[in-house]
Amino acid sequence: MIYFDSTATTKPLKEVLDTYNKINEEYWYNPSGMYKGSVVVNSLIEKASLQIENILGLSNKTIYYTSGATEANNMAIMGICMPYINKGKHIITTYIEHPSVYNVFKNLENLGFNVTYLKCENGIVNLDELKNALTKDTILVSIMWVNNIIGSINPIKEIIEIVKKHSHAKLHVDAVQGITKIKEDFSYNDIDLVSITFHKIEGLKGIGALIANKSIQLSPILKGGHQQKEIRPGTLDASLIVSSAKALRLAMENRDNHYNYVKKLYDYLTQKLEKLNHIKINKTNESYSPYVLSISIDNLKGETAMHYLEESEIYVGIGSACNEKIETIERAIYAITKDNSRAINMIRISLSHHNTPEEIDKLVEKLESIRNL
Amino acid sequence: MIYFDSTATTKPLKEVLDTYNKINEEYWYNPSGMYKGSVVVNSLIEKASLQIENILGLSNKTIYYTSGATEANNMAIMGICMPYINKGKHIITTYIEHPSVYNVFKNLENLGFNVTYLKCENGIVNLDELKNALTKDTILVSIMWVNNIIGSINPIKEIIEIVKKHSHAKLHVDAVQGITKIKEDFSYNDIDLVSITFHKIEGLKGIGALIANKSIQLSPILKGGHQQKEIRPGTLDASLIVSSAKALRLAMENRDNHYNYVKKLYDYLTQKLEKLNHIKINKTNESYSPYVLSISIDNLKGETAMHYLEESEIYVGIGSACNEKIETIERAIYAITKDNSRAINMIRISLSHHNTPEEIDKLVEKLESIRNL
Repeated sequence: MIYFDSTATTKPLKEVLDTYNKINEEYWYNPSGMYKGSVVVNSLIEKASLQIENILGLSNKTIYYTSGATEANNMAIMGICMPYINKGKHIITTYIEHPSVYNVFKNLENLGFNVTYLKCENGIVNLDELKNALTKDTILVSIMWVNNIIGSINPIKEIIEIVKKHSHAKLHVDAVQGITKIKEDFSYNDIDLVSITFHKIEGLKGIGALIANKSIQLSPILKGGHQQKEIRPGTLDASLIVSSAKALRLAMENRDNHYNYVKKLYDYLTQKLEKLNHIKINKTNESYSPYVLSISIDNLKGETAMHYLEESEIYVGIGSACNEKIETIERAIYAITKDNSRAINMIRISLSHHNTPEEIDKLVEKLESIRNL
Repeated sequence: MIYFDSTATTKPLKEVLDTYNKINEEYWYNPSGMYKGSVVVNSLIEKASLQIENILGLSNKTIYYTSGATEANNMAIMGICMPYINKGKHIITTYIEHPSVYNVFKNLENLGFNVTYLKCENGIVNLDELKNALTKDTILVSIMWVNNIIGSINPIKEIIEIVKKHSHAKLHVDAVQGITKIKEDFSYNDIDLVSITFHKIEGLKGIGALIANKSIQLSPILKGGHQQKEIRPGTLDASLIVSSAKALRLAMENRDNHYNYVKKLYDYLTQKLEKLNHIKINKTNESYSPYVLSISIDNLKGETAMHYLEESEIYVGIGSACNEKIETIERAIYAITKDNSRAINMIRISLSHHNTPEEIDKLVEKLESIRNL
């Protein structure tokens, strides 16, 4: 099997699973308890949070553990907007966000909010468009770092500056496809709310995190016990938290090596693909992640192409895993091509440091043979 | 270490962890994908759901997997009430619910709902009080099966009949402390919404489930991808789901044996405790779970007693783990005693099939010695 879908999920590292098991065998007490067993479990969680803070250079941040990026994104956006429900405040996002951001904004629009969707016709936010959209009523700007479909990288550093200079809005960044893959040219400390998840970086599923300014007032989505300052109640799972900190550490330690390797694979792949005239690469600017490559095949639906590749045990995606199984146009492709068929005929090739040039050769050979179908 | 806090959490079974590991090693693909690896993962999830349906005798139910019981309870209540936010409809719960139900109702009260809190002065719902509370405007009744503090068992069968006969309200039951412990005298199929969790029954943390009538219209809390019919978006974790089905099966297979064993321990313990006149058992009726015993010690705060027992490596709870660390009165104790000091001087002794009569002896000996402090 040749796996080109690590944007959707990754195989957890053995070291990460080992940590998970150790905690479930020895430190399984409820961290909300007050006896020694619980105190130890709680200290493991605090150590994991400190580790994450150190790895990401965080100061004055609270890490809220969630069930994943979907919940983290919902928490960030609803957490800021909830107090204004039905009061028609202005919020900004982009047309190419992940469904767990985009659909929250769509819902807020239905609830009376005034929403600006930045077009991202070039795959990334146009800074002038952002600047012009900001008003004194803007309470939230939510912009993803790396797009999950076309791999475009938003200029987060400049976005931070513009939002700070021209508004009082809080800034939320969905960092899911950037973290441990792309080197930040910004500081997390300059962003009010950052969403991350771990199963995309060789950690376990079922856990994500919202990194929030300590000073920020978030309205919780869930009500319940006193865990996580009542902002995100529910029994904390030390096994998932500690193993996630480990996954983050390992991925971050290898970030630059992995990047350089994957960038070479990407260049090798794109050079080959550029020679195939029935294939178009969905990329419109030079700010991109080599981990994500979107292509459209002339006259062939993404789903059909995916199954054709599958015959040779090659796995690719056909868009956000969160969007699959229902025929939806990938907004990111449409944004940059204005072409429905390009969006429908799309497959997503996600590269990782586990892939090899030989795997690329097999993929390209198979993609080439599509012409003769 | 002697563990008397399995109401808070339990050590996961080795078999459950084995399943978790196997899936993370072999079936880690994103179940939302469409290639074979994903299809297999998805079929494992469907098989697990079918297994849960068979174990619980469910028909026409959808199982929504959540991050735990807190989210399941929030989803059930908000899922019914959200469309009526600010419209002042009537909803009913009890004064002694878990914080993840009670605090959702408190919040809905702030949002304009008309809430009736059934008093449960006898530790359980008074059926006449329930009947009288129901009106044509009642849209939801949420009543727990087994109380997590005093172990009282609500008459769910009669509650189902009354709610059906006297209202059009949906019925939600928090079954967390009853499932696999107490034999149901009702059918889950007669309840619209049931919340369960797995880490209390020797499964893993980070997962719970809301079992909902297929016909019910739930408004989702989280927005995002198309997973779980868009009612609960986010990447599904087959490893947590399949291992939870296993935990449920194993616990259910042993339910009656474990119950009989624990009931004997309970009788042995209470007989001994009744001889200690500085200790009062917080129990007011004969419908109770032998897994949960709450006692109050004259003139000694629960927290102090807990730490005193801890010196001998005996772990007990001092109320809902979700309520610890913040000085709150346990509502359930106050409901049945109307005595603040009884509520503050409370410890919770949770029994399980792992406990032994020798452990009970040590506990009682230590509790007896408190008199001489």
